[in-house]
Amino acid sequence: MKKVKIAILGLGTVGSGVYKLLERRKQEMPSKAGVEIEIAKILVRNLEKAEKKVGRELLTDDWREIVEDESISVIIEVMGGMEPACTIIMEAFRAGKHVVSANKDLIASRGKELLEAAKDNGCDFLFEAAVAGGIPILRPMKQCLAGNEISDIMGIFNGTTNFILTKMTDDGMEFEDALRVAKELGYAEADPTADVEGYDAGRKVAILASIAFHSRVVFEDVYTEGISKINAKDIQYAKELGCDIKLLGVAKNTDNGIEARVHPMLIPSGHPLASVKDAFNAVFVHGDAVDDAMFYGRGAGEMPTASAIVGDVIDILRDIEWGCCGRIGCSCYRELPVKAIGDVESKYFMRLHAEDKPGVLATIAGVFGNNAVSISKLIQKNTQDGFAELAIVTDLVKEYHFRDAVTVLGGMSVIQKISSIIRVL
Amino acid sequence: MKKVKIAILGLGTVGSGVYKLLERRKQEMPSKAGVEIEIAKILVRNLEKAEKKVGRELLTDDWREIVEDESISVIIEVMGGMEPACTIIMEAFRAGKHVVSANKDLIASRGKELLEAAKDNGCDFLFEAAVAGGIPILRPMKQCLAGNEISDIMGIFNGTTNFILTKMTDDGMEFEDALRVAKELGYAEADPTADVEGYDAGRKVAILASIAFHSRVVFEDVYTEGISKINAKDIQYAKELGCDIKLLGVAKNTDNGIEARVHPMLIPSGHPLASVKDAFNAVFVHGDAVDDAMFYGRGAGEMPTASAIVGDVIDILRDIEWGCCGRIGCSCYRELPVKAIGDVESKYFMRLHAEDKPGVLATIAGVFGNNAVSISKLIQKNTQDGFAELAIVTDLVKEYHFRDAVTVLGGMSVIQKISSIIRVL
Repeated sequence: MKKVKIAILGLGTVGSGVYKLLERRKQEMPSKAGVEIEIAKILVRNLEKAEKKVGRELLTDDWREIVEDESISVIIEVMGGMEPACTIIMEAFRAGKHVVSANKDLIASRGKELLEAAKDNGCDFLFEAAVAGGIPILRPMKQCLAGNEISDIMGIFNGTTNFILTKMTDDGMEFEDALRVAKELGYAEADPTADVEGYDAGRKVAILASIAFHSRVVFEDVYTEGISKINAKDIQYAKELGCDIKLLGVAKNTDNGIEARVHPMLIPSGHPLASVKDAFNAVFVHGDAVDDAMFYGRGAGEMPTASAIVGDVIDILRDIEWGCCGRIGCSCYRELPVKAIGDVESKYFMRLHAEDKPGVLATIAGVFGNNAVSISKLIQKNTQDGFAELAIVTDLVKEYHFRDAVTVLGGMSVIQKISSIIRVL
Repeated sequence: MKKVKIAILGLGTVGSGVYKLLERRKQEMPSKAGVEIEIAKILVRNLEKAEKKVGRELLTDDWREIVEDESISVIIEVMGGMEPACTIIMEAFRAGKHVVSANKDLIASRGKELLEAAKDNGCDFLFEAAVAGGIPILRPMKQCLAGNEISDIMGIFNGTTNFILTKMTDDGMEFEDALRVAKELGYAEADPTADVEGYDAGRKVAILASIAFHSRVVFEDVYTEGISKINAKDIQYAKELGCDIKLLGVAKNTDNGIEARVHPMLIPSGHPLASVKDAFNAVFVHGDAVDDAMFYGRGAGEMPTASAIVGDVIDILRDIEWGCCGRIGCSCYRELPVKAIGDVESKYFMRLHAEDKPGVLATIAGVFGNNAVSISKLIQKNTQDGFAELAIVTDLVKEYHFRDAVTVLGGMSVIQKISSIIRVL
């Protein structure tokens, strides 16, 4: 029986998981994929540290040793970051090797050239793990739902921020406290910026939107807004309005362009995404035939990510066995514009402090009215210092109209401060 | 560009949906699959009736005309039932044609021989639509989750019964009334037996268990119990216990065999499956790497089912284009035993009427104790006629022990009647 040699680039959390899972399934690979496998090499930065995990004979700190080894057919890139990952993958394609990657940063920005290089060299390039970790989503979009015109995607793509928001909602914590707990439990990194500011979710939205709408969306196209400004009071008001606050990734294919964005959002507490708690991810998809479908599971972690990667590896093994590598590559056969965020329509929740005297509310309402913003709900609470706290929910309005209203309100002497602006589903 | 000719067997609800969706996506097929398509023939029973839907030149009432037409490469079987569907599909494979089917009755009973015939003739045989309609589940299991050892599947596989139970739960209806509403709205057929008694869900469990555990499970192996005996009072008690009642399909791969069953079950109201309402389906999967994953969407209906079928067709078109038909066929490479239902462990909810006098409860508890059944919860309510209504929840117990206890209780003079027995998650 044919034996396929595999190399792993990186032996961090995910790399270790992939190594473990491939070893665990090794005996069954002939039944699953029709070929035997062997893990031939693992690229690491620190040989001594890595020796504690796997045998020295498997390790190398020189990526050329892997790319130039003609006996290796499949490379699993789990090192992350733009470089040297990009260079190594491009070289791997040139050497005719198939690549599985979990590198959302790289794919969200340079997916097009990577997929083109894979195609030019007759190679598979699969990256199920790059979006929503263990949840099957990219392959279902490219295959199972391929008969649909997908119009909407909405999901919770980041476990760290979902964990923080869950703590803030269920335990009444403030953001900083919930972030500290997330760090203590290993859900947040030492520098949590990419998660907390929505960049991580934005990369996933870019990749998924490209596949869903058949038109390239890069990370730089995605509007991102994080959760660091959300506080316990906003969550309290959301509850009064029958809502939860979630960090959502949203992508829509509209008549005048693609919308791609990540931002916190008030969603009704009865919405299926509201019940997605802690570090779980979930993705809602709407297609013209399938209607609504949802995919739910663990969006990160050693073994869930390894699950997605090994699934991709098995698919490549089958392609090698059947001589059809490259069978499903880039599916971007359209070129659609991406809308500027100013042109996107949303409803907004706004919390502000204003002087508690007659006529102020009329003035605020007037500013909204002059900028084409309709108010659908209003909660007013008196504070102790002579100011009133107002929570306002608007109807659907284009972002730039709303921003104009906010600018005018921000400059008025009767308004003490605008504390929060959060979109509403 | 190559043109692939397709035939559809059946022009009922699903067949019409498939015809519509293929026509809708026709222009894009070269981009999606690398080939053009043409719907060449549609098999119908009644030519005159079908003429109102599509042009006469497309129709035939003779299946041999399709199977013997060498220009047709792909056959979509949406006629349902065992025969003549089985014969036609077998003949189609012999003629080298690829087949997509939504026929769960056929696949759940004769999947093995169909998959073998497909393999022997180098053909694709895909049936994503046969389980959970539009929800991508079979391909994710065979590909995305292929790196996992799947241990558990649990899901709502039948929209009709879920609609009925939702009506009973939310509106307090009795079964018969909810069934009537389901019929009026087109969710239930004139003869609702296959849905209501769990046979439809049982077929899906058989197919999914075979794929998940790599060992053939046929419909005849699946224990099925329906919802016709559930009444509003059971649902009331379930609510008191913090639970909802759902008709669940369950499949487990245990150390001493596969469990495959369909029955009503009390599940905690906070469980994600409890929030699956109306005609929606959802499938929970547990694997050793991915942990928990859930797939949710529409399990039936014209266009959701067509979505799954057209996804399969596109995959076959790619296989034709890449010359790799048969790439993913039967994945049953193990032979595991299927447990008898008596050997399955469950918790039980039991509602009974007993004489309301001292010592009766001790007697009942004694019978349970003698049969290795532990009681974990008990609610007693006095009725007006001198009897007490008891609702009992047991700990985990093997079914045959519990049945023994029920037999003894059923023969006791102090017990007026045993009204309900429902399993508990």
